Amino acid sequence: MEVASDLLDRQGPIYREDTAVFVSQSGETADTLLALDYALENGALCVGITNTVGSTLSRKTHCGVHINAGCEIGVASTKAYTSQIVAMAMMALAIGSDQISTQARRDAIISGLSSLPSRVSEVLKLDAEMKELASSLIDSESLLVFGRGYNYATALEGALKVKEVALMHSEGMLAGEMKHGPLALVDENLPIIVIATRDSCFSKQQSVIQQLLSRKGRLIIMCSKGDASAVCPNGSCRVIEVPGVADCLQPVINIVPLQLLAYHLTVLRGFDVDQPRNLAKSVTTQ
Amino acid sequence: MEVASDLLDRQGPIYREDTAVFVSQSGETADTLLALDYALENGALCVGITNTVGSTLSRKTHCGVHINAGCEIGVASTKAYTSQIVAMAMMALAIGSDQISTQARRDAIISGLSSLPSRVSEVLKLDAEMKELASSLIDSESLLVFGRGYNYATALEGALKVKEVALMHSEGMLAGEMKHGPLALVDENLPIIVIATRDSCFSKQQSVIQQLLSRKGRLIIMCSKGDASAVCPNGSCRVIEVPGVADCLQPVINIVPLQLLAYHLTVLRGFDVDQPRNLAKSVTTQ
Repeated sequence: MEVASDLLDRQGPIYREDTAVFVSQSGETADTLLALDYALENGALCVGITNTVGSTLSRKTHCGVHINAGCEIGVASTKAYTSQIVAMAMMALAIGSDQISTQARRDAIISGLSSLPSRVSEVLKLDAEMKELASSLIDSESLLVFGRGYNYATALEGALKVKEVALMHSEGMLAGEMKHGPLALVDENLPIIVIATRDSCFSKQQSVIQQLLSRKGRLIIMCSKGDASAVCPNGSCRVIEVPGVADCLQPVINIVPLQLLAYHLTVLRGFDVDQPRNLAKSVTTQ
Repeated sequence: MEVASDLLDRQGPIYREDTAVFVSQSGETADTLLALDYALENGALCVGITNTVGSTLSRKTHCGVHINAGCEIGVASTKAYTSQIVAMAMMALAIGSDQISTQARRDAIISGLSSLPSRVSEVLKLDAEMKELASSLIDSESLLVFGRGYNYATALEGALKVKEVALMHSEGMLAGEMKHGPLALVDENLPIIVIATRDSCFSKQQSVIQQLLSRKGRLIIMCSKGDASAVCPNGSCRVIEVPGVADCLQPVINIVPLQLLAYHLTVLRGFDVDQPRNLAKSVTTQ
């Protein structure tokens, strides 16, 4: 994974043997298009994932995917983000389709994809709970969001949403890095969201939660349905239970409560959720 | 670049053709040693960079470098960090030594290495200035540090130091990502450090500074000596001028004022600079 502007800053290595995938909702983001030019000059096969038919990205790439998420009006993306995850998972399935060894896992992910709409409907029912949670956080100065593995993306995206619309300093972090520094910030006031749904990192997240609890951290834990007592045995944490899907699709479900939280935090703090301060929908300057 | 715990969480790809370099001051960090085991199992050539002769890291790797920075007592590393940069730059020089096309650049970096001690002595003279800056920041709730290219590491490390010893929520960010979200946080209260010393990203950093100034951001700009008017034409920003060296070594100089800032912030806020809350010098648990 490369951030387009950073790849350009470092003039990162791209060769003729490489396939480069470019992701942009608008298909007009300046950094992404400049990174595309750079990859084209270096001879890579360039694939676009965009929401906008006829955009510069879809015209300049060799091939690609239109995510068809519909018109996005708010500056902070929501449905485009989840649709991008789905498009990338489907691309990975297509690339991996000639391996017999991964057939069982592929089938599980494909069946997970078809169950996504009903799971998302289910998780949207957390709206009132998220509104209530938001009201308990409106006066906080900072928020940390800890994820790992597939859900590091959830932590980054959830924190970004809170940052850009609720104007609260929120930081997404790798849970594994907590003990190498961020743990010093932990006290009874700083709210911390820990994403600990079931996947191969679950037991490591349980251990992170234990370390945070022993420092009296103010925890909000997102876990799989029925796991409340497994993530917080003494019942002292706020728990958000979400429905489960295949591990690589779980971020599609997990981001929804955080999007709702950011929405309610924004409204309760009196800001405009569609037009965040200082930001533009499509960043067409470098 | 891979974070050891994240590589393990994702079971990232490592093959027999790979060389993996492991960096640990103590040589006993659990995550790093587990990542080393994983790389050894996958047949990679493993190189260690450590400060501790006879440590597990130096014993288990195929070869490596002892940075010889001397005994580090404080939990938050300072001299080990800068020595690690020097060791990695020297390793890059050794690997690139058979290319005639890079000879001129290599010579410039080698001469930059020999000038480092005098440049560091020079930048240490900023101590009083950093103390005064710290006193103006003690009541801030948050701090952002923007860097890019070689100095993204400076932004991350500077923010980490403030986080772990001064217990202030501080976040290091890619300056190129500012317009994609963090810009919403900018107002006249939030202190923002921008690292804008001379390198190939300098003009992009000037543009970032302009965008921050037009949102009335409270800026502290680190620039090369003599560049104060180039980074802040109207004189409204606080400017820290540092001596220049070859671009890839500049982080060794640039981190020093931030280490001093973190130190003074910690002392002024009444915390223990050598023993931060909740943290251990060597993290030997996962």
